[in-house]
Amino acid sequence: MHKFEEITTHTKEIFQGKIIQLKVDNVTLPDGNTSKREIIKHPGAVAIIALTDEGNIVLVEQYRKALEKSLVEIPAGKLEEGEDPQTTAKRELEEETGYTTDNLQLINTFYTSPGFADELVHLYFTDHLQKMHSSPDGDEDEFVELMELSLKDCEQLEQQQRIHDAKTSYALLYLKLRGLK
Amino acid sequence: MHKFEEITTHTKEIFQGKIIQLKVDNVTLPDGNTSKREIIKHPGAVAIIALTDEGNIVLVEQYRKALEKSLVEIPAGKLEEGEDPQTTAKRELEEETGYTTDNLQLINTFYTSPGFADELVHLYFTDHLQKMHSSPDGDEDEFVELMELSLKDCEQLEQQQRIHDAKTSYALLYLKLRGLK
Repeated sequence: MHKFEEITTHTKEIFQGKIIQLKVDNVTLPDGNTSKREIIKHPGAVAIIALTDEGNIVLVEQYRKALEKSLVEIPAGKLEEGEDPQTTAKRELEEETGYTTDNLQLINTFYTSPGFADELVHLYFTDHLQKMHSSPDGDEDEFVELMELSLKDCEQLEQQQRIHDAKTSYALLYLKLRGLK
Repeated sequence: MHKFEEITTHTKEIFQGKIIQLKVDNVTLPDGNTSKREIIKHPGAVAIIALTDEGNIVLVEQYRKALEKSLVEIPAGKLEEGEDPQTTAKRELEEETGYTTDNLQLINTFYTSPGFADELVHLYFTDHLQKMHSSPDGDEDEFVELMELSLKDCEQLEQQQRIHDAKTSYALLYLKLRGLK
């Protein structure tokens, strides 16, 4: 029994998409009253904090339809079903940046929006990058532009809200704490 | 025109809930191909990094139905329509913790899941807390338990994955960078 656990009395599946599912749970609350919870199921994701030999941060700019604007973010991607997150991380790094590595350290995992979604991000770090011969390609419906920037330049992009998402802001604090200039 | 902008050719509203909305956009990609984007609209949220006079971090434990478990998080809550985020932050701090403040500093804003949702978190900091006479009450369907912990204790909870969400993990790095012990 978890603290303040809510007991499901009915589940209504609303939507089953390519990426997310939506359901509404009727629940009984700890005081016996009832409520509804709108819940997004998500396969989970990886993100990679990658430093070049020059000490620059590897980033990608891409269009985010949910926001109707482009953001600059650390490389990231969704888990395929049954895939080990480290495998996903290596694949996404290769696809989005043209770099590869055999040295990925898991530094943290966190839920992005626990109030309504179960998306869990697995966050990796590497400063052992090798440029691949092939150029980055990405998924068929993903268009990304590679950037390599100093921490200071990233902080400036954050001020301008071109870097503007939780995992990338977390990455900048993480690198600052590691002593990156 | 944003970089790699995707042009909406059709929007299908799937669900309009109490908190989130779901739509699916048909889009034309930069190369002329088409795809679909599953998008969650969310009113946005606030979160508050609050330090007591003793230098402890104010946290709340609550059940998260999307995860089917309880998490320990910094105080947070959704924006009401048209509400100024700072007003929301003060209200949520009062409701969830029984503390109030007239000194909230906005330290960052970030999207939590830009791949599929437009939820924007406004993150505040305060170390000017006053205990109110009234006890914490929360929303009618929210049950929370107040905790006040040192940074070290929080880092231990993070290791145990009882602290396990992006905004709270961000808060711990932020406080460490500020020199909190």
